[in-house]
Amino acid sequence: MLVGSQTWEFKRPPTILSTGTVGGPFEAKGQLTAYFDQLYDDIRCGQKTFEQANQIMLETACNLAINKSDIPKEQVQFLIAGDLTNQMTPTNFAASTLQIPFIGTFNACATSMESLALAANLIDSGAASSILTGASSHNAAAERQFRYPTEYGAQKPDSAQWTVTGAGVGLISNTGNGPKITSATLGKVIDMNMTDPFNMGGAMAPAAMDTITIHLKDRGIDASYYDAIITGDLAKVGRSILLDLAKEQNITLREDTLLDCGLMIYKDDQKVFAGGSGAGCSAVVTYGYVINQLKQKKWNRLLIVATGALLSPLSVQQKQSIPCIAHAVSIENEVKS
Amino acid sequence: MLVGSQTWEFKRPPTILSTGTVGGPFEAKGQLTAYFDQLYDDIRCGQKTFEQANQIMLETACNLAINKSDIPKEQVQFLIAGDLTNQMTPTNFAASTLQIPFIGTFNACATSMESLALAANLIDSGAASSILTGASSHNAAAERQFRYPTEYGAQKPDSAQWTVTGAGVGLISNTGNGPKITSATLGKVIDMNMTDPFNMGGAMAPAAMDTITIHLKDRGIDASYYDAIITGDLAKVGRSILLDLAKEQNITLREDTLLDCGLMIYKDDQKVFAGGSGAGCSAVVTYGYVINQLKQKKWNRLLIVATGALLSPLSVQQKQSIPCIAHAVSIENEVKS
Repeated sequence: MLVGSQTWEFKRPPTILSTGTVGGPFEAKGQLTAYFDQLYDDIRCGQKTFEQANQIMLETACNLAINKSDIPKEQVQFLIAGDLTNQMTPTNFAASTLQIPFIGTFNACATSMESLALAANLIDSGAASSILTGASSHNAAAERQFRYPTEYGAQKPDSAQWTVTGAGVGLISNTGNGPKITSATLGKVIDMNMTDPFNMGGAMAPAAMDTITIHLKDRGIDASYYDAIITGDLAKVGRSILLDLAKEQNITLREDTLLDCGLMIYKDDQKVFAGGSGAGCSAVVTYGYVINQLKQKKWNRLLIVATGALLSPLSVQQKQSIPCIAHAVSIENEVKS
Repeated sequence: MLVGSQTWEFKRPPTILSTGTVGGPFEAKGQLTAYFDQLYDDIRCGQKTFEQANQIMLETACNLAINKSDIPKEQVQFLIAGDLTNQMTPTNFAASTLQIPFIGTFNACATSMESLALAANLIDSGAASSILTGASSHNAAAERQFRYPTEYGAQKPDSAQWTVTGAGVGLISNTGNGPKITSATLGKVIDMNMTDPFNMGGAMAPAAMDTITIHLKDRGIDASYYDAIITGDLAKVGRSILLDLAKEQNITLREDTLLDCGLMIYKDDQKVFAGGSGAGCSAVVTYGYVINQLKQKKWNRLLIVATGALLSPLSVQQKQSIPCIAHAVSIENEVKS
């Protein structure tokens, strides 16, 4: 049910029953290697194209999540997912292979939490008992679509980000054990008239601030309610802007509990400029590392704030600004009473 | 709540409170001219680019729907919409201007009913009391993205379709008078391994058949329950294939009550090959002509089956097949008891 202006609190918080996380060869050298179910040592995952590799990763992640649960594939009622490629080509083809009724979603790198929020609402409302939801991206597919093919060797500034090659999905259910989805805040589009596609973190930070502010107000809680607030892919530049914005607006975001998936996924010596990004970034980190930590009770209350830069190759060519969005989902071990 | 395998029946069927429909100069010469709220005589709608024209049409349609209702814009809680352009550029920018929390959806030309189904579920479940939902497309933007820029004058076969320039939206509410959204069936992706982007109707017909079959089974009704079943944009080729498939599967679809938005929108003397298509096609016909006929009680029970060809410029270049999907939403003047 709606609380405040744009937040859903779930009466019967759905469970993240199982997860599937898949990454590429660069992610296999990263910080969170132990939390991937499968890591490909081939950027093409044995396929002809990067986009088909993306498709295979999503299919694999979905099948892993299903196989880890006691729910047969035929009983998974809906797939809610999206990716970064034109018209979401990889997700469309994966939905075809999986043969699960498909609800396509797109909010760039915020797709992961947009989809999880919708899945949780559908489960809570009785529209489904089990839903697969997730997001994916592929570094080389994204580079040649949004910027330049990797082979061109184009230089980038330090504020650029590295698109994650990976797919992360969760199997959401109305029964079973696991972390619970307790609430979700769907964000507005915030456009600060920034135009540099090599500084998406900076462009997205105000959207993250807006959604966090509204989420806390709608739920009537302080940021300290959460053990950590984890943004999607603000990376170094965006995170520091978010901390500045929070100070300006008198919202206490503690530096040590404000984390970012784009800063968690790779090692310091991996050359990823400001950090990771891509629809797969928040998806693999959330459904891999974060859910694991929740299950181990290292955290008990988390807010995941996936951030999305709603630019396209076309909007960049047409010299338009970068509209941004952030969607927040709270995942908790115990339900707030 | 879920009935059968993939259909939602709404306990408190949400109302289509008001609508907004906008078209371009070619639609202004069409068959349904009287059912558009606004028709632009300039294919660019006064903007620099076709994509910005698409954006303006969607914004205008949204504002029209809001202005026709007694709900102030600030009380519209969510916008659920998508379009055909890469990364849904026009919808993203419209969501920025409108400043309504945004849930981006993409299932190609099935986006209209995917979005309406989600909106109805959110309203029915108490996650919102008013939602704007719709879809849009722009002929020249789609041509240069999916095929060739119009200026090239590329020839097309008779099975090709004409992308509608238009935006159609509905304001969905938990109160008020108007046609009710009674159920929705979310489709699976069906891929018959067709590869011709100039025969999308043929590729989409099996997806429409699958969704219609499941919808009737899930609701426990015959096709005769509906005064008409209206597909999105199968056009001439796809509609005749759908009729053949229905015969094969012993499902009675009456020729006189099986309509298609792509065959309704233009006049016979307009050169649109097999008929209209595009995410805006089913959106403008549904939220314009169809809702008007329901309000006038010329029809009382309708099933709208929006069909989507989930191809992309990339999947065509990579010689992949065309995966297709169809989502069905029933709109009725009185609620089935």
